[in-house]
Amino acid sequence: MPHIKLSNEYPGIRSLFIYRPETAAPLNALVQAMLHNPHPTLSAGERELIATYVSRLNTCFYCCNIHGAIAKHQLGNNGENSNIVEEVLADLETASISHKMKALLKIAAKVQSGGKNVLPPDIELARSEGATDLEIHDAVLIAAAFCMYNRYVDGLATWQPDNPELYDKMGEQRAREGYLTPPVKVS
Amino acid sequence: MPHIKLSNEYPGIRSLFIYRPETAAPLNALVQAMLHNPHPTLSAGERELIATYVSRLNTCFYCCNIHGAIAKHQLGNNGENSNIVEEVLADLETASISHKMKALLKIAAKVQSGGKNVLPPDIELARSEGATDLEIHDAVLIAAAFCMYNRYVDGLATWQPDNPELYDKMGEQRAREGYLTPPVKVS
Repeated sequence: MPHIKLSNEYPGIRSLFIYRPETAAPLNALVQAMLHNPHPTLSAGERELIATYVSRLNTCFYCCNIHGAIAKHQLGNNGENSNIVEEVLADLETASISHKMKALLKIAAKVQSGGKNVLPPDIELARSEGATDLEIHDAVLIAAAFCMYNRYVDGLATWQPDNPELYDKMGEQRAREGYLTPPVKVS
Repeated sequence: MPHIKLSNEYPGIRSLFIYRPETAAPLNALVQAMLHNPHPTLSAGERELIATYVSRLNTCFYCCNIHGAIAKHQLGNNGENSNIVEEVLADLETASISHKMKALLKIAAKVQSGGKNVLPPDIELARSEGATDLEIHDAVLIAAAFCMYNRYVDGLATWQPDNPELYDKMGEQRAREGYLTPPVKVS
């Protein structure tokens, strides 16, 4: 049960967005800018993969499942293997993603455990695999932001349904529309 | 030295805002909404105190010093004891703040260590001291957000000057103007 009185028509962070629209606007604009808007080199699916991976490290069920579902739809739409999400969550080393993405996800994991844990060798590895300054910046910011979203969702004990079809449906909507359209009611 | 090439005219998060204006806009709008805009019951100084306390727990030198300076100016402007910030950072239990603020800061510390660490007794304690749902929500969100800002600032190894007068000057500006005006150059 949530720690405060929330709408029970929407799960996870969406119930908090309804509760507090003043902060929902910039929180939603941030995720749209980081994950959905066009990017010179990282696909939306690759950026969603970073969000999913960090949410799993923070054990946030809602964020891991919704962003995992969005990533699957994004990566699938690009004609790539839609099992990439499961592969990354099971074992980063053997997942069928680029060495550059592995290096960016390792930086994201360092950020998750604490900003000061990102060290020059982590950055050098990413650069040696072809990562740009912008990609390194965005990997750090996405990882840092999901340390916020995950804590917000779990810190207020929001309702997090366990129905995989529901996450798939919500994920398909967000993959297509981005974050700024109204959510579908699920209860 | 920062992990990526940043302007050396601005310290901490301000150098990142110059680097990536697309994400700076919502990041800045969020801090303005959480900490500076009018609030029904929590003063700006009280909200800055939560940001400062979490930044200290995350050992983020820049964020702790700038938000500590803003809090001092806000609390001082309210005619209260401007040593409150040092008292809270030294020992929450003996600091001369309300029992309600102590309970909200304890919730913030739980959020800092992980969202799931906030338990019903933490919420019950805050309620027994008079905290409202909105105050509990905002304490959780501010704490979660500073787990992002702190990781962003430290994860990219931004320049963090160690001159206390500089933080006082920047803090005085933000306490007065909020977050949406241009920063003063400091190098």
